[in-house]
Amino acid sequence: MSAVRGREAGRQTWLQDVTTRNLKFTLAYDGTRFVGWQRQADGVSIQGLIEDAVARFEGAPVIVHGAGRTDAGVHALGQVASAHVTFTHSLDTLRRALNAQLPNDVRVIDVVEAPPDFHARFSARSKTYRYRLRAGDGGDPFTRAYVWQMPEPLDVTAMRAAARVLVGSHDFAAFQSAGTETKTTVRTIVRSEIIETPPHGIEYEVEGDGFLRHMVRAITGTLVEIGRGWRVPASMAQLINGGSRGQAGATAPPHGLVLVRVEYH
Amino acid sequence: MSAVRGREAGRQTWLQDVTTRNLKFTLAYDGTRFVGWQRQADGVSIQGLIEDAVARFEGAPVIVHGAGRTDAGVHALGQVASAHVTFTHSLDTLRRALNAQLPNDVRVIDVVEAPPDFHARFSARSKTYRYRLRAGDGGDPFTRAYVWQMPEPLDVTAMRAAARVLVGSHDFAAFQSAGTETKTTVRTIVRSEIIETPPHGIEYEVEGDGFLRHMVRAITGTLVEIGRGWRVPASMAQLINGGSRGQAGATAPPHGLVLVRVEYH
Repeated sequence: MSAVRGREAGRQTWLQDVTTRNLKFTLAYDGTRFVGWQRQADGVSIQGLIEDAVARFEGAPVIVHGAGRTDAGVHALGQVASAHVTFTHSLDTLRRALNAQLPNDVRVIDVVEAPPDFHARFSARSKTYRYRLRAGDGGDPFTRAYVWQMPEPLDVTAMRAAARVLVGSHDFAAFQSAGTETKTTVRTIVRSEIIETPPHGIEYEVEGDGFLRHMVRAITGTLVEIGRGWRVPASMAQLINGGSRGQAGATAPPHGLVLVRVEYH
Repeated sequence: MSAVRGREAGRQTWLQDVTTRNLKFTLAYDGTRFVGWQRQADGVSIQGLIEDAVARFEGAPVIVHGAGRTDAGVHALGQVASAHVTFTHSLDTLRRALNAQLPNDVRVIDVVEAPPDFHARFSARSKTYRYRLRAGDGGDPFTRAYVWQMPEPLDVTAMRAAARVLVGSHDFAAFQSAGTETKTTVRTIVRSEIIETPPHGIEYEVEGDGFLRHMVRAITGTLVEIGRGWRVPASMAQLINGGSRGQAGATAPPHGLVLVRVEYH
């Protein structure tokens, strides 16, 4: 039962008894049919699937903490999760058995042993998200579940100038959806760039120490409005200097977003 | 009404009146939800969608001939189709309007004017199909609609040796499903190769002057049985020397197959 103490007692107790193992999972998933990472009352969550699969090994409930709480419809190439367990199966056996149990839109890429105090979310140094766009042609039938496709071309030069402005520590309140539980809306972005994948692909990649709720999708929606010529690139600087949510662009749809990787100290 | 004469009178009449235009379409589609290329009594076909969309321009029914009659669930990157029409819209306008009308799992990549006697199927010199496999790991959640994934590794060397045997003119009766209407089961294969895409991808690419019903999938199923060690590579030579369908491998599932391109003289 030691593995479930975390749920009742909060953050302090994830430093557990040293007789348990702390496992670090790297996960990939197609988020299309899920309610998101986090376990919810209704619908299928990735956290719920992983917890249930690991619990079968443990013979008791297990809490699996995810690094990023991806929204419904958002994908992951390198989500990281951690869990304290007591079973003694080899990592390779565990990975194979989890993949055999999980549906094929959720895959365990890797499982390694982590130090006892490792926590997928609290130990994370940075997260990288990628938003995939396709603009200016008839579209691609094979990537429509993973790419926001639009027939109009986008002004990539204007988008690139606006994206660059976000690097640094800023107040991202203008890009936050209601319902965020957070003490501060200041986040530090270390990389924010537009990458062209000719002829029609445009990717927005952003790496930061943390992201507010819907923040990457709201930034992307604003960048697309700049690319369409609906707003000027300089408006991005105004938004991180006291702008409100109503002044920023619409939230981009979830299916273009993927959590690429999480880095640790 | 001249554009529908082909349906009633058969092959001879696709040489039409020179006042009509003959259009050559290049199409890409995700075959997942379709009954295949060919129009059928029930279900949605790609031919039906294209014919209905072109007919809206023509103001009358139009027959659209496809180069390859892809099965239900089979995809295309470069299917070619042709149709005689009388409307005078520009090719660019037509392509854009068709893409606006068609569902986003069917895309018109290109439309060009073709000589009056061009016919997408009868004029084709060769077709190239690719079958995508992934073997020896937990799988990839993002390509499962387009790749036959299996956890066991495959012996690529054995598969490569067996694939090579098929180059040349042979009787492919052992790889033909019942229901083919064809005078001869001899086909000429100009390329038949296994391509590794590390770490876990294996592609089978085959180019030939024509393919019998389910032929590429039956060859792939046989190659996979060779890769699993269930049959020896030399068995492939026996199959093209008087083998029967029951002696070849099981038909591989449709979702791994894609019609890559069609070439013309």
